[in-house]
Amino acid sequence: MALSKKPVTGMKDILPAEMQIRDYVIGVIKDTYGDFGFTPIETPCMENIENLSSKQGGENEKLIFKVLKRGEKLNLETAKTEADLVDTGLRYDLTVPLVRFYSNNASQLPTPFKALQIGNVWRADRPQRGRYRQFMQCDIDILGEPSNLAEIELILATTTTLGKLGFKDFQIRINERRILKAMAAYSGFSEENYDTVFIILDKMDKIGLDGVATELESSGFDKTSIDKYVALFKGVDNAQNGVAYLAHELVGFLEKEVEESLAEIIESVETTKAAKFEIIFDPTLVRGMSYYTGTIFEISIPEFGGSCGGGGRYDKMVGNFTGSDVPACGFSIGFERIVLLLLESGFQIPTESKKIAYLLEKGIAGKALCNVIEEAQNARKNGEKVLVVRMNKNKKFQKEQLIQQGYEEFKEFYNDPLN
Amino acid sequence: MALSKKPVTGMKDILPAEMQIRDYVIGVIKDTYGDFGFTPIETPCMENIENLSSKQGGENEKLIFKVLKRGEKLNLETAKTEADLVDTGLRYDLTVPLVRFYSNNASQLPTPFKALQIGNVWRADRPQRGRYRQFMQCDIDILGEPSNLAEIELILATTTTLGKLGFKDFQIRINERRILKAMAAYSGFSEENYDTVFIILDKMDKIGLDGVATELESSGFDKTSIDKYVALFKGVDNAQNGVAYLAHELVGFLEKEVEESLAEIIESVETTKAAKFEIIFDPTLVRGMSYYTGTIFEISIPEFGGSCGGGGRYDKMVGNFTGSDVPACGFSIGFERIVLLLLESGFQIPTESKKIAYLLEKGIAGKALCNVIEEAQNARKNGEKVLVVRMNKNKKFQKEQLIQQGYEEFKEFYNDPLN
Repeated sequence: MALSKKPVTGMKDILPAEMQIRDYVIGVIKDTYGDFGFTPIETPCMENIENLSSKQGGENEKLIFKVLKRGEKLNLETAKTEADLVDTGLRYDLTVPLVRFYSNNASQLPTPFKALQIGNVWRADRPQRGRYRQFMQCDIDILGEPSNLAEIELILATTTTLGKLGFKDFQIRINERRILKAMAAYSGFSEENYDTVFIILDKMDKIGLDGVATELESSGFDKTSIDKYVALFKGVDNAQNGVAYLAHELVGFLEKEVEESLAEIIESVETTKAAKFEIIFDPTLVRGMSYYTGTIFEISIPEFGGSCGGGGRYDKMVGNFTGSDVPACGFSIGFERIVLLLLESGFQIPTESKKIAYLLEKGIAGKALCNVIEEAQNARKNGEKVLVVRMNKNKKFQKEQLIQQGYEEFKEFYNDPLN
Repeated sequence: MALSKKPVTGMKDILPAEMQIRDYVIGVIKDTYGDFGFTPIETPCMENIENLSSKQGGENEKLIFKVLKRGEKLNLETAKTEADLVDTGLRYDLTVPLVRFYSNNASQLPTPFKALQIGNVWRADRPQRGRYRQFMQCDIDILGEPSNLAEIELILATTTTLGKLGFKDFQIRINERRILKAMAAYSGFSEENYDTVFIILDKMDKIGLDGVATELESSGFDKTSIDKYVALFKGVDNAQNGVAYLAHELVGFLEKEVEESLAEIIESVETTKAAKFEIIFDPTLVRGMSYYTGTIFEISIPEFGGSCGGGGRYDKMVGNFTGSDVPACGFSIGFERIVLLLLESGFQIPTESKKIAYLLEKGIAGKALCNVIEEAQNARKNGEKVLVVRMNKNKKFQKEQLIQQGYEEFKEFYNDPLN
């Protein structure tokens, strides 16, 4: 049978040059998040299909790769719907699995629990350049910490990681779902329309404030509400301190505690940050997922249009599994985008050990072979990376290839006619 | 909707204590194999279903998790067979994906190509204690190296890794498919029966030589052949040098080159090994997969009954994809078993940096919070791992939990009433 050389549609093979960068980024992530007390965990790549279809995942639930039931359970003749055929699917994110994991293992986990997850997720998106159907996500989450210490530590850990990877002059944009809601309430939108309003607001970076106003109008919203809403955003733009301005304007609509907490996060991060970035309040930040209940934040890297990661507080999601809520807050770093940016920038990984290639003439065997390998073993013990290979006919080309792979030194071994 | 807290049947959540060991083992593997010039690669977890059903995978092909076609391609009404519903599956090993990867990317890869793969595979085995339907495999392979330098480097790299993980007094058992065949031919078995004979021989460690003889007899094989076969194995047992003994006995059935190459592998490894183990010739070693064409080998660890990894030469498999053969040899280390052995032995990971927990009284906020976080940030810059958490009501229990997580030092911060 003819076998297919190509990977599955929309997925990709990862070659050594990219793998090196990926492994390096994963190493920095694990080390840095480890310094902040995050501990790695892992869940299976598959989840029960009910968990994946529980409306936690928004649009991603339409993109699930579903896995056929195994064994006798499968009956194609009587199967009427997909549900008769399928009982699991590949996860589309790491948040739903984390919350299930926490619900399943809470008795064995410390409070608060600081989790680090690095793993693949799958989404059957339309294949397009730079977007793949299998990609890696990298999430940190703190469960069981109600105070803004969670937000502060998440933002510091993530930005320290980005700094160590060489990124600078980036931005953390931060907002609060309760500010979004208070602004909408103050303007006179009714609660059942909030989601529609926020979806339009979310287009701000593409269509601008005027565009948002126009679209709100064409969606049939009241002109007075729209004017009040637009005035608020303009007010923030002109204010020295956006959070304080809004807190003043929104009296009666916004709890004092929201203002204080957000100001505290921004100040703590600004004061103690270990990378070159700024944290700014952005009342236009929406973030899609409906499960957020409080703070939301996003990374913007100037080299890269659009978000390079984000997260927020989701205090109600554990309750969906266990019946009782647990405060939770998470930050997902855009792993694939970061790898892409490093690859495109020609990023060189700092290496410590010397890479040497031993080239052996064909025919070196027996005692002579032993001697070469012994020499390689000794060099490895001394911390060198040693590749032992047969000399190709075209030695010059072989060396060029090896130089591309990072080998700096060559040693050639020939048959000793006296041997 | 009620959500399920449990992982998918037969799969497991990995908690921090085990993850720490897993990450440590992966680190040692990557470092050590890197010293030998192996470069990491990755392939998608899914493969086209034809590639997974091409008879390369033996019994594993019955255990595939199949993935439903996506989008308009799926029509449940007209679907008659699984093939109408399914176009991909989750990989059951890393060898088939590697060979596809090599066929797809050969022009961009050096010769020889030394690949390291660490990744999950899925098999719908009957769930049982210690065996899971998702598990990690860790393979090294050398493609494009016809000489036994491949075998020597694979065995040295794998055993050096085991040594660094603290294993000693283990065995590498080695054999050659061509010796297996020559022994069968010499004894008078006909070629179409080789596979049946080898399946029975493979039970040697369970039923002994007498048991093998009995089973061969009850399978209807000729008594003369069985006697000659049994005598050969006894001869090896009594011989000082099993390989030389067989080479002498099997003259006319076994190429001289096989004896020389095997002897060279054993001597090179014995002379240059960097761990405490022995490599022994074992003519009863079969290894199941039919794709092996030459040397085969397996790791036996005394603490663990049974194999802890293995591999061999498979020179014909790339040809199935490309039409032209490429010499190939691989070694798969039993990752999950090694993790299990380390967990059960109470293995302690060598750590370099101090782990400190800062306990903050509830209510510490504003400037005081900034100061604590600043102190933590400075300690992290100095290489310490610092967890910043709110003090729980039961501080004693909280500290006990933290000690279990490896925190050796505590620092407590209280509200300053003068602040």
